Amino acid sequence: MSGNTFGDLFKLTTFGESHGPGLGGVVDGCPAGIPLDEAMIQLELDKRRPGQGGLASTARKEADRVKILSGVFEGRTTGTPIGFYIENSDQRSKDYSKIKDVFRPGHADYSFNAKFGFRDYRGGGRSSGRETVSRVAGGAIAQELLRAEGIAVYAYTVELGGIPANDFDFESAQDRPYFSPDADIITAWEERIKDVKSQGDTLGGVVEVRATSVPAGLGEPVFDKLDARLAYALMSVGAVKGVEIGSGMNASCSLGSLNNDPIGPDGFLSNNAGGVLGGISSGQDIVARAYVKPIPSIAQEQSTVTTTGEPTAITIGGRHDIAAIPRINPVLKAMVCLTLADMLLMDRRLGVRD
Amino acid sequence: MSGNTFGDLFKLTTFGESHGPGLGGVVDGCPAGIPLDEAMIQLELDKRRPGQGGLASTARKEADRVKILSGVFEGRTTGTPIGFYIENSDQRSKDYSKIKDVFRPGHADYSFNAKFGFRDYRGGGRSSGRETVSRVAGGAIAQELLRAEGIAVYAYTVELGGIPANDFDFESAQDRPYFSPDADIITAWEERIKDVKSQGDTLGGVVEVRATSVPAGLGEPVFDKLDARLAYALMSVGAVKGVEIGSGMNASCSLGSLNNDPIGPDGFLSNNAGGVLGGISSGQDIVARAYVKPIPSIAQEQSTVTTTGEPTAITIGGRHDIAAIPRINPVLKAMVCLTLADMLLMDRRLGVRD
Amino acid sequence: MSGNTFGDLFKLTTFGESHGPGLGGVVDGCPAGIPLDEAMIQLELDKRRPGQGGLASTARKEADRVKILSGVFEGRTTGTPIGFYIENSDQRSKDYSKIKDVFRPGHADYSFNAKFGFRDYRGGGRSSGRETVSRVAGGAIAQELLRAEGIAVYAYTVELGGIPANDFDFESAQDRPYFSPDADIITAWEERIKDVKSQGDTLGGVVEVRATSVPAGLGEPVFDKLDARLAYALMSVGAVKGVEIGSGMNASCSLGSLNNDPIGPDGFLSNNAGGVLGGISSGQDIVARAYVKPIPSIAQEQSTVTTTGEPTAITIGGRHDIAAIPRINPVLKAMVCLTLADMLLMDRRLGVRD
Amino acid sequence: MSGNTFGDLFKLTTFGESHGPGLGGVVDGCPAGIPLDEAMIQLELDKRRPGQGGLASTARKEADRVKILSGVFEGRTTGTPIGFYIENSDQRSKDYSKIKDVFRPGHADYSFNAKFGFRDYRGGGRSSGRETVSRVAGGAIAQELLRAEGIAVYAYTVELGGIPANDFDFESAQDRPYFSPDADIITAWEERIKDVKSQGDTLGGVVEVRATSVPAGLGEPVFDKLDARLAYALMSVGAVKGVEIGSGMNASCSLGSLNNDPIGPDGFLSNNAGGVLGGISSGQDIVARAYVKPIPSIAQEQSTVTTTGEPTAITIGGRHDIAAIPRINPVLKAMVCLTLADMLLMDRRLGVRD
Repeated sequence: MSGNTFGDLFKLTTFGESHGPGLGGVVDGCPAGIPLDEAMIQLELDKRRPGQGGLASTARKEADRVKILSGVFEGRTTGTPIGFYIENSDQRSKDYSKIKDVFRPGHADYSFNAKFGFRDYRGGGRSSGRETVSRVAGGAIAQELLRAEGIAVYAYTVELGGIPANDFDFESAQDRPYFSPDADIITAWEERIKDVKSQGDTLGGVVEVRATSVPAGLGEPVFDKLDARLAYALMSVGAVKGVEIGSGMNASCSLGSLNNDPIGPDGFLSNNAGGVLGGISSGQDIVARAYVKPIPSIAQEQSTVTTTGEPTAITIGGRHDIAAIPRINPVLKAMVCLTLADMLLMDRRLGVRD
Repeated sequence: MSGNTFGDLFKLTTFGESHGPGLGGVVDGCPAGIPLDEAMIQLELDKRRPGQGGLASTARKEADRVKILSGVFEGRTTGTPIGFYIENSDQRSKDYSKIKDVFRPGHADYSFNAKFGFRDYRGGGRSSGRETVSRVAGGAIAQELLRAEGIAVYAYTVELGGIPANDFDFESAQDRPYFSPDADIITAWEERIKDVKSQGDTLGGVVEVRATSVPAGLGEPVFDKLDARLAYALMSVGAVKGVEIGSGMNASCSLGSLNNDPIGPDGFLSNNAGGVLGGISSGQDIVARAYVKPIPSIAQEQSTVTTTGEPTAITIGGRHDIAAIPRINPVLKAMVCLTLADMLLMDRRLGVRD
Repeated sequence: MSGNTFGDLFKLTTFGESHGPGLGGVVDGCPAGIPLDEAMIQLELDKRRPGQGGLASTARKEADRVKILSGVFEGRTTGTPIGFYIENSDQRSKDYSKIKDVFRPGHADYSFNAKFGFRDYRGGGRSSGRETVSRVAGGAIAQELLRAEGIAVYAYTVELGGIPANDFDFESAQDRPYFSPDADIITAWEERIKDVKSQGDTLGGVVEVRATSVPAGLGEPVFDKLDARLAYALMSVGAVKGVEIGSGMNASCSLGSLNNDPIGPDGFLSNNAGGVLGGISSGQDIVARAYVKPIPSIAQEQSTVTTTGEPTAITIGGRHDIAAIPRINPVLKAMVCLTLADMLLMDRRLGVRD
Repeated sequence: MSGNTFGDLFKLTTFGESHGPGLGGVVDGCPAGIPLDEAMIQLELDKRRPGQGGLASTARKEADRVKILSGVFEGRTTGTPIGFYIENSDQRSKDYSKIKDVFRPGHADYSFNAKFGFRDYRGGGRSSGRETVSRVAGGAIAQELLRAEGIAVYAYTVELGGIPANDFDFESAQDRPYFSPDADIITAWEERIKDVKSQGDTLGGVVEVRATSVPAGLGEPVFDKLDARLAYALMSVGAVKGVEIGSGMNASCSLGSLNNDPIGPDGFLSNNAGGVLGGISSGQDIVARAYVKPIPSIAQEQSTVTTTGEPTAITIGGRHDIAAIPRINPVLKAMVCLTLADMLLMDRRLGVRD
């Protein structure tokens, strides 16, 4: 509620700023007995590490080595809170000094200042995308709980810079550049990135997240619908401006007879619902998509004002990504893992399957 | 968390089923001294009442008279919980007996049964759209708090059955059929509805919700971003399959230079952000859109199975809406009012403006 | 958090004032399939009803008939919220007009006014002991969940007006005046009450609450210790000024060698811990005691001030109890039932016994 | 709720075990602009440090140096989460190997094992008193917020080993051994400690916590009464078995005419209420007492069983405190600071004083 804790039963609380000593978090509510070590978390962190994103990513170098501080004993979770910490190794504060007194368009600067009265201007402080490193670590812990239940979660890019993928091999996507489910589209995406970069501009895209082998019954019928929780989770990631489930936006211009998923003796005959009916998982794959806006830090000149309201112009250079994709993919995956872990524990107490 | 309470500080807890004695709720956390009476709530309830929706709505007749049970003294809120109740007056249970043992495609029947093991099959029970009557009542109370702060919230239809509005006069929309911001599009929408109804089919649409005069500073920078909370709120309404803020989906195929909102001495020069930067309100209008799927209760035959897994077919007649629009509009408005009231109270304690 | 909801997983939200139309609540989080009807709740309500408390109780007559509004279908809970309502039948508002502008010593008047700026002065409004009717109803629902797990909860008076009971037959106590576990002490208690009443004064006492057959493992090791939650629950009842677990206060002047409970092959050899070790239930009886202050409404003259600060004197006559005991007993029992139900559900997700 | 977060608006989440790498926490919800540095926190930590407790304390040496990891910029809080960490420097695991398979009487061993199925047996793991280091750090941050509002909080020993203090100079107590408010009683306490220690035994006592200059209006009228929250806070500290407010236990055998606090034109004429009326602060000093049991680790032989249920005996030597007092005093103070900070923020949104 106060905004730095995610989840009600499987809870992740995070802390840390872009240019402080480091970032970390606490996972509270993870059941005892789940296998966990630092390598499991590191695997996910490495996916969002600066420099791993192909042409689209910043040159900032961060080792992003996670250290588990508590909650694990002899290789298993103990049921007590799991603290973790990732040191900031590369804090070139001077890069950011010129933005100290200017609001960057498309950034949190203006609204953050309005809220708190002052701000840590170094690299966005708490509003920096770097904050998501704690989400990925927490999501990796959630993933181990889901794994123990047979659930798997995938994030992959279905559109980049307006160019959609045509193949959707989400398992292979995990090892491809841009987490692309379509091997043949990668060249087109890279050309688009190069072109936009040369103009000092940035671009967006669409990421799909899919969870397989989710049992029917997760989610609550009214406010805490599974899809409502997923929308909250995905939209809480900076740069996401739209979220849809299953047929999503397209459902709005479809017909009931086309959008309903008929049921046969072997199960549902289609999945327009995206695996959620009445807010509760149906046993089909959960399918959600996040629409990601272009990175606001562009190398072109933009009109803005100073913190005292004087008009000025700003050109942002420096070590910035061209697109939030693909580094946002493991973050979105983490948010879905955290949501499903939370709803899974929620269901354990109310459902009848126990 | 257990799913029938919305909000952390301005909290609405609801109860009631489609065919029980009635529905109601408790608003906890409303500050003392806000003017409130039953007429203020009734005004909003009347907007979603069956029979008020033009051609698209069910013939079920419900007076939907709200009764305030507590928390108001001499015309003002006392700071204690506001209980309210709406009796169910028209409960034709026999209409629903034929669906007792069959899962309706596109409905919550299957997943609800998987979760709870048994269900109140009468009209969807807790999963019925009738549940939203409590949301509208709670939202009307939130609206009075917002009003005291000068904030206004509007919901209006920007697309119906695939036909978009071309004018966006959201204030006039409040008094027009379908909450249409475009007087000239109504005839086309009605023809589309008649056509689809004659085929025993249903349709969806898009509703925009706008909040004006929202102060900068609402929302928390990380998980409880204002847009994340709005996405949660809107997606928690049955039939909503997609949510977007500001330029939304379109941002994903735009460029940073086009999607950023430059700032001039008199404020922002555009509003692609939809009034939210870094999860915090910027002082511009908050603009969100909900993509609504077609009503799943169609009069055409659909394949399905019985609760024991036997294949069968179902044709749903009866008193059903053709589209969730326009009756969903006051519900979506209510969810935005509840979210803003909650974030407003949240901000009061952390922000510097006090 | 906003103070009218109790519990995190088994949640009771209450509303209503002493002199409004009625009081009620919503239980959210009760698992599906628990047998429940109005008679089960009524049984507990009847224990706290005005006029049932022997010599110590007010003459105010309230039928206190509960009506279940939702969440029960064919005699079983459905897993959806259980709304309930109790109409106020006897609202002699004029009795209270003389206290409208005066702060009664020992009452919430002064502090309530300081908090909210104005108050419903009729009978204490939300601060009235009448508010506990909703707690008893909610506790009765919790009791049915506990019953399904074999857990029983008892509240009984171990001291009244400074006179301690000497026998502790808590099962028989349920059917005796004052919920006395000691049949022989009742006469002494009644004489004490008569004596104090004749002086226009009031008295307090001590209530013990015991839960039997509680499984080991309930409670969380750090903040949400079972005993911490019980202390919160009991102290949340007006008039309770002290709470202890097991050997309680006496432990503070004991020795480790005497206060520790040794363990034998058949279990613990004593129960100074009151059934809680390190915040977690040990499988022994849970034993807690609440110290109840004298009713503040006395028929003697007291110094006080008006709401505008003028010195005055007040003598409170009318229909007031002489002691909160025995009517507070079912309320304290209800709070323990609610706490145990909550911790039971909490444990289901984290513990290993599932 | 999941037990490692305290507070709803001013939230402390903690992690860490006795013999892991370290302990820490996250404070979320602290308003922006409060002066804070490591020295302010260190001052409180030093009060509970092993070796600082006079004759009653363990010889375990811990530097207990706190490091702030986030949330502070240029000497002031930023409104974002404040992460902190205290490394464990002295982890003699071998001291604890002999208790690996035995349940220590009076300890959490048995119940913890029943809950989680296995445990970190090294020094009590998460159930160790060492966990409270994070509470003291979090409480120190809360104290700075309270200080900014003019509120001060004191913890002092009013009874040790059955010997009560006769003087109550709580301000001087802060600099005396045992946080004694009575300079003349210290010798008697030390003799009692020496005596009990020579018998291999341990003792308990009573700590009073007082908050001065608390504004009227904190606390919520029903479940979240200020005294209920304080009872929860104090009872959540291991070793506390009883809690009282104001006249407390004594109120139960008093009379209404004696226990009520009359009000004069200059305010209340006594403080039996302990500063809380109807769950809301009255503007008088908040006064609460915690009854602390003797340390369960005694050097005498005790009957117990092994983890497989075999009867055995255990004698616990090693580096243990004789009494939880005085090291528990800063912990209890911290819990009251955290509670008041939380209720203060809670009140800001509902009260009328804004």
